[in-house]
Amino acid sequence: MQRYFSNSKENDKLFLINDDIYHITRVMRMKDNDKIEVIYDNDLYICNVILNELPWVDIVSKEEGKIEDKEIILAIPLLKEQKMDLVLQKATELGVTKIIPVTMERSIVKLADSKEVKKIDRWSKICKEASEQSKRNSIPVISNIMTLKELVKEEGIKIVCSTIEKENNLKKFLTEHKNYDKIIIVVGPEGGISSKEEEYLVSEGFTRVSLGKRIMRVETVPIFILSALNYEFME
Amino acid sequence: MQRYFSNSKENDKLFLINDDIYHITRVMRMKDNDKIEVIYDNDLYICNVILNELPWVDIVSKEEGKIEDKEIILAIPLLKEQKMDLVLQKATELGVTKIIPVTMERSIVKLADSKEVKKIDRWSKICKEASEQSKRNSIPVISNIMTLKELVKEEGIKIVCSTIEKENNLKKFLTEHKNYDKIIIVVGPEGGISSKEEEYLVSEGFTRVSLGKRIMRVETVPIFILSALNYEFME
Repeated sequence: MQRYFSNSKENDKLFLINDDIYHITRVMRMKDNDKIEVIYDNDLYICNVILNELPWVDIVSKEEGKIEDKEIILAIPLLKEQKMDLVLQKATELGVTKIIPVTMERSIVKLADSKEVKKIDRWSKICKEASEQSKRNSIPVISNIMTLKELVKEEGIKIVCSTIEKENNLKKFLTEHKNYDKIIIVVGPEGGISSKEEEYLVSEGFTRVSLGKRIMRVETVPIFILSALNYEFME
Repeated sequence: MQRYFSNSKENDKLFLINDDIYHITRVMRMKDNDKIEVIYDNDLYICNVILNELPWVDIVSKEEGKIEDKEIILAIPLLKEQKMDLVLQKATELGVTKIIPVTMERSIVKLADSKEVKKIDRWSKICKEASEQSKRNSIPVISNIMTLKELVKEEGIKIVCSTIEKENNLKKFLTEHKNYDKIIIVVGPEGGISSKEEEYLVSEGFTRVSLGKRIMRVETVPIFILSALNYEFME
C-alpha cells in the first residue's frame, strides 16, 4: 500500500499536500475507495481515497504500535548537490532522525545565506519522498545550517569520525554503548575534519572513532555508519 | 600519492594505460621525477615519472606486505545504469573482490548479448577508477552475466537476501561464520528475488538471511551488506 505523510487532521479525515494529490491521481491513478497508508503524528492510519474529497482522505482504521527508534543525528558538511542528495536519500532509508548541515573549515561548498531556506526545503522534500518509499513512520528533520559551536549544544552520546584515531573504532564504541537513546555523529568533508575542529569537538565531549582501514569517498561515510548502526542493533 | 594499476612489467619498469597517462599529464599535470604508487600483481611499487618515458615508469622501491582480504563475491541483478554505477563504485570502495551480474526473473533490465562485452568493459572501468581512489591493491573482477544455474557453481559460504526469512538475520549469520575466506552474497532485484529462485539457491547450499526491518532501495542493499561486513571485521 502506498504511504504518505499528513500534517493536519480534522475529526476522521487527514489532509494531504499537493504533491501527494498529484502522486495519487496522476502517478498511481487511484480510483474511489482505493486504500492508502497515512502517517500522522507518528501514527499509522489506513485511509480511503474519494477523488472528489481530496485533499482530504477518510480514516478507516488506526494501526496499533508505534515504532520507537533510537534517535540518530547526523552532522555533515555541505556537499555538492548530487552527493548531498545521495546522502539524504540513503540516510533516510537507513533510519536517520535528524540531519544537521555544518559549516566546516575544509568544506569546499559554500552556500549564500539567502539560499539556505530554499535548499533546506529541497533537502526536506528528498527526505519526505525517501521516507514514504521506505515506509518510515517519521520524516527526518533537516535543521538550519549550524557552526560547530552551535552543534555541540546537542545532547546525546557523541562521536566524530577521525582520520588520526587508530585504537578506538566504531565497533568498539558501539559495543560499549549499546543502550544509548540518542547518538550524534559528525562526518568530516573531503580531506577529513581539521585537527583543530576535531580537538574542539573532543573538548566538548565528542569521542574520536576510526572507521577501519578502508578509504571511502565522503558521501559513502554516512551510509557506512548508518548501515553499521542498523547491523549492530539488528533483531 | 596518486595510485594507478599496471598489467605489465619489464625489468624495473611498469607500463601504464592511456587513461592513466592522460590523468598523469593532463589532470595531475605531473613533472619529471614526481612519484606515484603503482600496483602490479597485488604488490605496491613507488615509481618515478619521467614524461619522455611514458607509458613506462621507473620502479623506485617495492613496498612490503600484501593486504590479504577476505574474498567477497557480490551477485546482483542487472540494474538501471545510474544504480548499477553507484553499486559498482561503492562496492569497490567497500572491498568487494568480484561482482557477478545475474539474470533474475523480476529484473526489469534486459541486456542484448551483443552489448554485454561493452557493458562489462564500462563496469570494469568504474571499478578500476574507484580502486585507485580508495587505494586498493586489487581491482574487483566483473564476470560475464550469469544465470543462477551458473552462479551456484561458485565455492564459498553462500547467502541470499531474503524477504521472507524472519529468524536468521545477517548479524546472526556472520557471527556464526567468522572464519570464512570467501563469501558469496546474492541480492535480488526490486520486489525481491522470486520464491522459486530463492528455493533453488537454498537447495544448492545458500542460506537465507534477513537484513532487518528497514525497507531499502535495491541499490542500497549491497552497500548496506558490504558496510556490515567491514564493520563486523573491523580491527
